Amino acid sequence: MQDISSSGHVFDAAVALTPQGGNAYAGHTSTAYANMVGPFGGAIGATLLNAVMLHPERLGDPLTLTVNFAAPIADGPFSVTARVMRTNRSTQHWMVELQQDGQSPAFATAITAVRRDTWNETDADFPLAPPPAQVAQSPAHPRAAWTACYEMRFISGMPGETPQDAGGHPSETRLWIRDQPPRPLDFLSLAAICDAFYPRILLRRPTWTPAGTVALTTYFHADAAQLQAHGDAPLLGAARALRYSKGFFDQSAEVWTPGGVLVATSHQVVYFKE
Amino acid sequence: MQDISSSGHVFDAAVALTPQGGNAYAGHTSTAYANMVGPFGGAIGATLLNAVMLHPERLGDPLTLTVNFAAPIADGPFSVTARVMRTNRSTQHWMVELQQDGQSPAFATAITAVRRDTWNETDADFPLAPPPAQVAQSPAHPRAAWTACYEMRFISGMPGETPQDAGGHPSETRLWIRDQPPRPLDFLSLAAICDAFYPRILLRRPTWTPAGTVALTTYFHADAAQLQAHGDAPLLGAARALRYSKGFFDQSAEVWTPGGVLVATSHQVVYFKE
Repeated sequence: MQDISSSGHVFDAAVALTPQGGNAYAGHTSTAYANMVGPFGGAIGATLLNAVMLHPERLGDPLTLTVNFAAPIADGPFSVTARVMRTNRSTQHWMVELQQDGQSPAFATAITAVRRDTWNETDADFPLAPPPAQVAQSPAHPRAAWTACYEMRFISGMPGETPQDAGGHPSETRLWIRDQPPRPLDFLSLAAICDAFYPRILLRRPTWTPAGTVALTTYFHADAAQLQAHGDAPLLGAARALRYSKGFFDQSAEVWTPGGVLVATSHQVVYFKE
Repeated sequence: MQDISSSGHVFDAAVALTPQGGNAYAGHTSTAYANMVGPFGGAIGATLLNAVMLHPERLGDPLTLTVNFAAPIADGPFSVTARVMRTNRSTQHWMVELQQDGQSPAFATAITAVRRDTWNETDADFPLAPPPAQVAQSPAHPRAAWTACYEMRFISGMPGETPQDAGGHPSETRLWIRDQPPRPLDFLSLAAICDAFYPRILLRRPTWTPAGTVALTTYFHADAAQLQAHGDAPLLGAARALRYSKGFFDQSAEVWTPGGVLVATSHQVVYFKE
């Protein structure tokens, strides 16, 4: 367990940015959210979104976030710039760049929007799942430090298990997930959780395949008040791949509250090495 | 039918760009691809991708395209700049901006990649569909000129039909679609087709709801040779929404060859007015 009494939650430390004036911020990679190589992409995406959240000109709540992972990010300090591309009456478009050693290994576009109550409906199917207390917590992956920052309870589709070709979707995972230690949900933690689904190819192939996210797009279906009302309860995640071909595959994820509210959908394209 | 004998296909004219030196291109909106207000977003996205395709520094084929529709685009001329953000050994990241009257009403990020033969598999389910010849062609929408540029044969989920709440996915459309007149498939036409699915809210609500795409992300699962081999045959498209909430909804689409190859998946977030 991390110390959350003095310096805040370990996630907040990982995505922290120090304003440098104008559109510029300073940040640092987090050892707690280290991946096998470089930082966990979900923490980087959340950090880029944090530059938008901290920006004094921000209008509304995050609606979309697309992160491009263009090159390896080294452990250490980096800078972030967040630039308003366009401000409309109720939406705003952003370009965010991470810089390190004169390069831009990650950048993002984002849209924020003033949300308002409208007709609402959900067409996606709420995944069947036993309550979190009935599902065993998975141990962290010894080679991916960031996995210790999440409480993951796999209902089905844990990498390393027997592939589920016999029935259902062959690359689907369902799991309960939340920050560890628990932390009230907000856009930053939700953005990171959307990238916490293992590459589907690890379920689909019997042999270990190196793989890494190239680009990730997340759509947020809730406003800040709705996320705040959720508190720190587990979220139900479901992820599946669509097609693997010529060195890349895509996977899509849904993140639900236990009460059946779809709070985010997310899609990514992943490089894999044969 | 458009004249394709002298000046090429109407789609090629719509997405045409004239290099202006460096990263700059000049383009013009197309009356053939006009939407109810402004141009059809699919043609704009394809035009932005065309700036990448024409760029002398391009590496490989399109892998992803994310287009932000930030503001209305006026009928008339515009300029486009395509900038390499990062070139790796086999992938390349791009930022593309459309400019009009000193503003940037649309911009995109894209990734190109050198594709290579690897293990391949499809986890998405090939939608059941009768062959195109057994499905009636839908007339063009009288208020959306661009719809006349596509041969659309709706198998299910045509807007204006009785909603399909009784069975199956409530907002799903399945249709055969190709350029009209037929045109050999390439990345540009495929990118546009990925945005040719009507807003799902038109199926879901009994009353007309103004709606427009805010951002669109497409993943390409084929290389140039595979698209060329497809020729000008119809593609099978399937689209469905996930969640409508607080003024926005998302929808996802799959585009398949008749032989069952998933050539693109696409996701978008759409504004709607209550």
